[in-house]
Amino acid sequence: MKRISLFSPGTIANISCGFDVLGVALDEVGDIMHIEETVEPGWRISAITGADLPLAVEKNTAGVAGLSLLNAYKSKVGTHPGFHLVIEKKIKAGSGIGSSAASASGAVWGLNELLGRPFTPLELVGFAMEGEKLASGVAHADNVAPGLFGGFTLVRSYAPLDIVALPCPNDLYAVVLHPQIEIKTQDARSILKTQLSLKQATTQWGNLGGLIAGLYTDDYGLISRSLVDVVVEPIRSLLIPGFDELKKTMLDSGALGAGISGSGPSVFALAKGSDQAHLIAQAIDVNYRKWGIDFEVHCAKINTQGIKILNE
Amino acid sequence: MKRISLFSPGTIANISCGFDVLGVALDEVGDIMHIEETVEPGWRISAITGADLPLAVEKNTAGVAGLSLLNAYKSKVGTHPGFHLVIEKKIKAGSGIGSSAASASGAVWGLNELLGRPFTPLELVGFAMEGEKLASGVAHADNVAPGLFGGFTLVRSYAPLDIVALPCPNDLYAVVLHPQIEIKTQDARSILKTQLSLKQATTQWGNLGGLIAGLYTDDYGLISRSLVDVVVEPIRSLLIPGFDELKKTMLDSGALGAGISGSGPSVFALAKGSDQAHLIAQAIDVNYRKWGIDFEVHCAKINTQGIKILNE
Repeated sequence: MKRISLFSPGTIANISCGFDVLGVALDEVGDIMHIEETVEPGWRISAITGADLPLAVEKNTAGVAGLSLLNAYKSKVGTHPGFHLVIEKKIKAGSGIGSSAASASGAVWGLNELLGRPFTPLELVGFAMEGEKLASGVAHADNVAPGLFGGFTLVRSYAPLDIVALPCPNDLYAVVLHPQIEIKTQDARSILKTQLSLKQATTQWGNLGGLIAGLYTDDYGLISRSLVDVVVEPIRSLLIPGFDELKKTMLDSGALGAGISGSGPSVFALAKGSDQAHLIAQAIDVNYRKWGIDFEVHCAKINTQGIKILNE
Repeated sequence: MKRISLFSPGTIANISCGFDVLGVALDEVGDIMHIEETVEPGWRISAITGADLPLAVEKNTAGVAGLSLLNAYKSKVGTHPGFHLVIEKKIKAGSGIGSSAASASGAVWGLNELLGRPFTPLELVGFAMEGEKLASGVAHADNVAPGLFGGFTLVRSYAPLDIVALPCPNDLYAVVLHPQIEIKTQDARSILKTQLSLKQATTQWGNLGGLIAGLYTDDYGLISRSLVDVVVEPIRSLLIPGFDELKKTMLDSGALGAGISGSGPSVFALAKGSDQAHLIAQAIDVNYRKWGIDFEVHCAKINTQGIKILNE
């Protein structure tokens, strides 16, 4: 029977000025997944290592996302194939680097490969979003899109779903500090103000425009100047102990910019080059200890390929 | 004595999703200006044709902008040269295609040429903004920037001033219908709501991101899908008689998108190719007559060069 092993990347959503629309995929940080065709029809999760997550497909983000794809496949082709899934969770749940998205994206991407690619990448985003809906109550696309497309992606519109894959400089890295406190996505959303001023909004979309222009032109200066969030970060950062000092340390260590990853509690920085990224990682690793909170630091190149097949 | 004659283009600001940040320059539609060095120091406007505008430099947008540059020149170089200006106004005041900006930009650009380019394009934007401040009370840059840089420009930030020149497809045209009613920029601004919802804002910046990505990739489909304004157009369009039907006629005639030019009353459409643009122009020329309002229709290629020197 056919089988596939894959790496599904962690992702940073809500990149500064790109709240709800802009995400990016990471190299090295991500879940490992194995999908194998089975004789009996159906969709099962046979094992999950690294996290205490439900095996029942309808309660698992990867399960629900896969189910969504397989139901669509059944409608489209008429047959009802069988697969089982093993997940090696490497991204902690609630880390703010797209743990649920990595599993959901990996499941649908792998199934699509094994089925001979009946669905487009955009359709895969739609299936993976069902997993996100289970995880957070909202079928958002800003983590699953970069996971599936690689690099930076813009969710231009949800109805209809319209994803724009953006380029990025070749030497761009991300550093993520994950303080191991829990911030639920739903809570992080409920503290946001539902209204903002027109001035805040125009500042934000000026910066988003600048960031996208910087990605197209490899203009690190413009990317750096544009990595500003005047809408969400001032509020959500209150939930993250030591955010202001952490961000300052990142910037003082040469980060192009820094902000909240997803809905937190992780904090990310972007940097030019591996050396700079590692300097930032070292600086925050020393600096954040004072808070008495367990934390992890990830340092990763921007992943422009998306999900990758692993050699057996 | 040295002299220069130049074409200073009309511009469309507030392009749909790019309220307050995105503008574009037009070919063929613009003011003609002549600047000549004089023996006696100082800055005079000796004649204006085509419009009833003040000759006193401190009451004229081109005058104030030029004065701002010449004062900076005096501080920088120490000398106090003399110039006089003749303006052939071709853009009607209050038309919504940057009449004040064209004169202000043309004056500072021409003076800078005659002085041997002591100032950068970004500095010229700053001087020209002084003219805009006189005209509308707000020193905005979204008309003067595309006039001076050409093509589409993004005003990423005002403090510090940061202008991003964007590329655009080679075959992009604009059609502008100018209903000859008066909407003062100040009035058009005062009716705007000062608050908007986070959902509106994210929709808007998703579209702005899509539009900029479309400009970088010559993706007319993406440009078209992104030319949507959910924040300003629903309010300001109430001030423009027949806006909804006019926009529909433009879209039905093949426009990529349509919206309010600047703060109105002009309405613009973007189109792929000269033929399509002329089809749109013909359709609205027929359709708009029913309103009993005098109007003009302009059809112009996007101007990627900015201000142009005219052969003597």
